[in-house]
Amino acid sequence: MIEKRTFAVGVDVGATTIKAGLVDRKGKILEQYSSDTMANKGPTVVLQQIALAIDKLFKHQKKTACFGIGIGMPGIVVPGGGVVRYPPNFADWKEVDVAAKIQKTFGLPVIVENDANAAAIGEAKHGVGRTYRNFLFVIWGSGVGGGIILDRKLYRGPHGGAGEIGHVSIDYDGRPCNCGSKGCIESYIGQRYLSKRTKEIIEAAPSDGFSSKIQGFVEGNLNKIEPAIISRAAEEGDQTAIAILQEAGELLGYALASALNILDLRLVVIGGGVSAVPSFVYRAIESGLRSRILQSHKTEVRVFRSELGNSAGIIGAASLAM
Amino acid sequence: MIEKRTFAVGVDVGATTIKAGLVDRKGKILEQYSSDTMANKGPTVVLQQIALAIDKLFKHQKKTACFGIGIGMPGIVVPGGGVVRYPPNFADWKEVDVAAKIQKTFGLPVIVENDANAAAIGEAKHGVGRTYRNFLFVIWGSGVGGGIILDRKLYRGPHGGAGEIGHVSIDYDGRPCNCGSKGCIESYIGQRYLSKRTKEIIEAAPSDGFSSKIQGFVEGNLNKIEPAIISRAAEEGDQTAIAILQEAGELLGYALASALNILDLRLVVIGGGVSAVPSFVYRAIESGLRSRILQSHKTEVRVFRSELGNSAGIIGAASLAM
Repeated sequence: MIEKRTFAVGVDVGATTIKAGLVDRKGKILEQYSSDTMANKGPTVVLQQIALAIDKLFKHQKKTACFGIGIGMPGIVVPGGGVVRYPPNFADWKEVDVAAKIQKTFGLPVIVENDANAAAIGEAKHGVGRTYRNFLFVIWGSGVGGGIILDRKLYRGPHGGAGEIGHVSIDYDGRPCNCGSKGCIESYIGQRYLSKRTKEIIEAAPSDGFSSKIQGFVEGNLNKIEPAIISRAAEEGDQTAIAILQEAGELLGYALASALNILDLRLVVIGGGVSAVPSFVYRAIESGLRSRILQSHKTEVRVFRSELGNSAGIIGAASLAM
Repeated sequence: MIEKRTFAVGVDVGATTIKAGLVDRKGKILEQYSSDTMANKGPTVVLQQIALAIDKLFKHQKKTACFGIGIGMPGIVVPGGGVVRYPPNFADWKEVDVAAKIQKTFGLPVIVENDANAAAIGEAKHGVGRTYRNFLFVIWGSGVGGGIILDRKLYRGPHGGAGEIGHVSIDYDGRPCNCGSKGCIESYIGQRYLSKRTKEIIEAAPSDGFSSKIQGFVEGNLNKIEPAIISRAAEEGDQTAIAILQEAGELLGYALASALNILDLRLVVIGGGVSAVPSFVYRAIESGLRSRILQSHKTEVRVFRSELGNSAGIIGAASLAM
């Protein structure tokens, strides 16, 4: 008797969190597990964490009903293989065959894709992509990545590394980026930078009433500041939080203008952990973008929040395995 | 008797020069005509100039031996048509059906393409593209444009406007660009900017011996400075000229790093009027690019001078008509 396959496993490996989910054919997440990534412990530990997350999901499900496992990960994924090269913010990681290791553990087909690409595919198949054929997907989290959707398909580039919008520089003499360049948009708006910047502003003016909300939310421990806290403070009227997010949005808009001028796209869809920011940030991104993009694009440009939100990566990775 | 068609006409319409050529099937230019563009006189005059240039070429050739006419022009060319929208540096030009007007005059098929795209196609068919399948073609002239060659074919983008590398910003708070943005690489290295900048430096230090070569070449008329003069001075050791071109090269390299990070390309081919700069400028571009591009691209990036040089536009436009 041939058992019917009903789901796939999608894993979204970020520098801060590993998320895994059982996903059905319609892109619905049936069950989910997540854990903090021990990215500074090297590839062996991270691979064990990935295997553990998948294992948890198989507790109540038969492997025979599973199409396979899709994994989204930062860094360059060698086309056609499962080898991940140089994922940023992962220690001691040069080239690792992630697919081979996970395949060996579970005996199921494994496909690995760049995390931003996986999320872009999720959005193209089950989100905004049902309405729009061409867009740039931006993953705004610890880092800033992207996936280019052309005619509803992913453009991977000749070497599998296309869409690195986080490393578009907005200032050639600007902030040093982890990648070795200067002024990359990631080094202005990535999760860590936003948290660090907010901490610095509050520390510089500890008695500033404007920031009292953030300080309250983290109970005085400024190391606990993260974008969700800044967003909450902004929604409650904290002027420091509003100013920080407004600026981040505008700067992202400027970087997107350069990218869209090259790619000839009009639509940007934003997902990732930080994409839950309040709506005024989206308006800031769109107005920054519109103020800098070429005349012929101006009236048509739009910036949307990802329909799948933080789950785009899991859903996209799983859909790759179906 | 059916006459054999042996050539096509290629026209390269720049903001400073209109060049037209008879091109054979092997991409060889048989005959050529050029004139200064009266870009500030509006579209009617420019269209007359284009027609005149083509007419000159037909003086000694039979129209019946001609495949057709290809025209490369700045601005957005509406896909599938001959309509040119908003060419930068052309006065009073919104949308003009260039193909229809020229077709009416000569009774031959006319195809219009963005000038950078046309040159990129020329290079892909008859130049560097014979060896390399994927590259970014940069046209460095009055403005800075680009064409994206993927798998030996032009990537036009969903709206026909892809590859606008000149409007990648290297500084969000930088120089105002004609396009309305700030810090676009075009506003640092475009022909007019280079000439203007050199003039300003010489005027600021008129007795500076370093610039005596440039002053000599233009017989004291600093309005006559152009990139060919700066290049000649640099080749003869003029330190001001060397510094200006070195900086221009590095800045172009920075803009290219952002572009190649998005597109996942490794090779840049540079054509256009300014591409005749000395070799040290190419080394500056390559080193600027390599210092800023993502780790995974670093070792493989290369910057080549166009094999077709300033003729890529004519040859590419003609090859579109064959």
